[in-house]
Amino acid sequence: MANSSPGADGARFLADVVLTCDEAFAVFERGAVDVAADGRIAWAGAAADAPATDAPVIELGGLLMPGLVNAHAHTPMTLVRGAGDGLPLMAWLTEVMWPREGRLSPSDVWWGMTLGSVEMLRSGVTTTCEMYAFEHEVIDAGRQAGIRQVMCPGVLSVAHLDEGGGVAERIAEIAGVHDAENDPSGRVTIGFAPHSAYDLGIGPCAEIAAAARERDALLHIHIAETADEGDALADRHGGASVPRLLADAGALEGRVLAAHSVWLDDADLDIYASTGVAVAHCPVSNMKLGSGVARVPEMIERDITVALATDGPASNDDLDLWEEIKIASLLARVSALDPTVMSAQQVISMATRSGGEALGLDVGVLEPGRWADMIRLDIDDVAFVPVTSPQELIAHVAWSGGSRHVTDVWVGGERVVAGGVCLTVDEARARYEVQHRAQRLAQESGT
Amino acid sequence: MANSSPGADGARFLADVVLTCDEAFAVFERGAVDVAADGRIAWAGAAADAPATDAPVIELGGLLMPGLVNAHAHTPMTLVRGAGDGLPLMAWLTEVMWPREGRLSPSDVWWGMTLGSVEMLRSGVTTTCEMYAFEHEVIDAGRQAGIRQVMCPGVLSVAHLDEGGGVAERIAEIAGVHDAENDPSGRVTIGFAPHSAYDLGIGPCAEIAAAARERDALLHIHIAETADEGDALADRHGGASVPRLLADAGALEGRVLAAHSVWLDDADLDIYASTGVAVAHCPVSNMKLGSGVARVPEMIERDITVALATDGPASNDDLDLWEEIKIASLLARVSALDPTVMSAQQVISMATRSGGEALGLDVGVLEPGRWADMIRLDIDDVAFVPVTSPQELIAHVAWSGGSRHVTDVWVGGERVVAGGVCLTVDEARARYEVQHRAQRLAQESGT
Repeated sequence: MANSSPGADGARFLADVVLTCDEAFAVFERGAVDVAADGRIAWAGAAADAPATDAPVIELGGLLMPGLVNAHAHTPMTLVRGAGDGLPLMAWLTEVMWPREGRLSPSDVWWGMTLGSVEMLRSGVTTTCEMYAFEHEVIDAGRQAGIRQVMCPGVLSVAHLDEGGGVAERIAEIAGVHDAENDPSGRVTIGFAPHSAYDLGIGPCAEIAAAARERDALLHIHIAETADEGDALADRHGGASVPRLLADAGALEGRVLAAHSVWLDDADLDIYASTGVAVAHCPVSNMKLGSGVARVPEMIERDITVALATDGPASNDDLDLWEEIKIASLLARVSALDPTVMSAQQVISMATRSGGEALGLDVGVLEPGRWADMIRLDIDDVAFVPVTSPQELIAHVAWSGGSRHVTDVWVGGERVVAGGVCLTVDEARARYEVQHRAQRLAQESGT
Repeated sequence: MANSSPGADGARFLADVVLTCDEAFAVFERGAVDVAADGRIAWAGAAADAPATDAPVIELGGLLMPGLVNAHAHTPMTLVRGAGDGLPLMAWLTEVMWPREGRLSPSDVWWGMTLGSVEMLRSGVTTTCEMYAFEHEVIDAGRQAGIRQVMCPGVLSVAHLDEGGGVAERIAEIAGVHDAENDPSGRVTIGFAPHSAYDLGIGPCAEIAAAARERDALLHIHIAETADEGDALADRHGGASVPRLLADAGALEGRVLAAHSVWLDDADLDIYASTGVAVAHCPVSNMKLGSGVARVPEMIERDITVALATDGPASNDDLDLWEEIKIASLLARVSALDPTVMSAQQVISMATRSGGEALGLDVGVLEPGRWADMIRLDIDDVAFVPVTSPQELIAHVAWSGGSRHVTDVWVGGERVVAGGVCLTVDEARARYEVQHRAQRLAQESGT
């Protein structure tokens, strides 16, 4: 689409620094990344070591690294960003959020997803894992924006147990979406998203998990976001924890991504480790809503995959994963009263490589075979001065780097942001639409 | 200096939104701020209510608000940003930071202060309160950059008790700097900065406080940053806390700004309240170094003035006060497990009005008589969409706004940043100098 996307011959990208975000965390000064015509990386390393090529060679300068992975979002909630800010939790939900969200039309959601995708792409997020309804609009809007998405259509008691045809019908619906839209070699992957065990009950979660497992699809679920959300379930089930109940029902046997996972005891962490549950850690949302502190260092000790996520923009209030990179470490350090936990390298890895792992996608590392989802940072900025060692450069990326440094973004080798401008969406139009639709929602709901 | 600075007739600035940050937190759509020839604000409010004027009228669009106040910084440490990242605290200090800082030349400090001032100005910080040595270089570099500064020359045991002429000589030195440089109607104010009671002892702190009080100058001191720093003092003084010991010695009787103030009990907070000590709260630094969580909501309940601060760039690692705005609230909420503590309005006020109060300067509010220290934000951005009420706009400034939205900055009516470019300093040269000087420090110190 854009000029610098690889054509039939692929392309070689040169940069002043290439950060591959592989396990060894290689930093190449004067690095090269070869992208094949199919949008995958063919080679990455020091430019001096690069094989001979006939492909066009594109000099980027700056720093090239993998695109960030946002492992848990409700992006269309861009439409209610900041609404009811400062109210107590239940008043916020019942008096503002639900009245507005209840009036969303499919085209509202399409525009919300579109604007949120622009926000993510421009800030360097190339993959998002979504939990929302209106799946057709989310898939279409994300596809047109060019972001890579794992779209997990939601199952919520108010929509699918209390009304409508029940969980079986919703499972069939999602299965249909999966079979029609799932495209692992493209940018759309479909998962299943039961909201939570406390909302749906254990049985329905297990049914949904079985349907996901049949298709090797991701099960994307909220677990243990707040301290008391499992209490009613525990009362009904002899005091067992939500992870224990889900595990006993077989719901954790497939590929599972658990958002939040704040209130877990040691036994719960052991269940995550033994079943291979991955965590979408949402530090900003957990802090802003006063939910609590996830035990991330203990998760990492147990080799649980921990990815980073913004959660929805109504509880953040933006979709800027750079904040999660810095704040995940800050929160872990102040909680442990220890400045050595969660290094710069670890939190950058959580936002890249671990995101790919958690979602089961070939992204998050600049290495052969993975998709060329890449971002370029402008490091000619005071935030990156001085550098006297590679370790300092890594520190600057984590602690001083931010969305403002992202200039260019590629998804599967296609450039979708150039010089800070999103090429795939008319951003001004998207802002206009979201603004006017939000005003209508506020007016109609009287909030 | 720059075109839009008010000339002999002053100037009227119009903006789409004016946020005055006064106590009522007025938000004016289509607002006006009149700046007099002396650089002070003559009028602020709704454009429709503005008095007749012959002054030039300058249309800014966007959002105009007071410049941010960074209440505690060691800005020249820009030279060691990111150095030794990830090391345990004592190894970080003894193996990297002190060997590098010990080799700083006066001109190194001048360039560090220059580059840090550019970073602050471009991100919307118009006033900084400094604690550092090399006061002549800091004052000169800050003055040339055009930032408003409260420069508090430091007193440290290693420099002024163990070596040199002792505290009395250093007090005389600072007093001389005060008498020569203090210019309350200009941009340079001089304070006194004993490093801490645990470093200097109570007696020397009280002597320095008396010298500050004689001149009605600010006493700027670290108090209770880490859990155990007062233990040795307490052992020598019958278990009393540092605030108790300082209060009993009369050291808190003047204008006092206590940085950090993390480990305070109720009695300590009462001492702060009764003596009028103001706090420079450094949430990012306190988290990154694993120091702890300051009891800010309890401080505010007691009407203690709490300003926000970055601390030095070696423990942050940037000078971006927008991060403190968001993270101060996030940290307080997760600590209290309550999403209603520290509202958007409160944290913006801490970064503006409370900063002015803590430093005793006429800044931090757009109202008649205060200095025209102002910043313009570009709100034609997804971060500020949608807005269906003034409260939502305030929420966006706190939670989604950032240094990337700051386009123009005025200090005392003089424009020092235009379109994101610092007009007072050649930034590329400053980056070059800091980079090369940092490389020399790393090489000479073998770190």
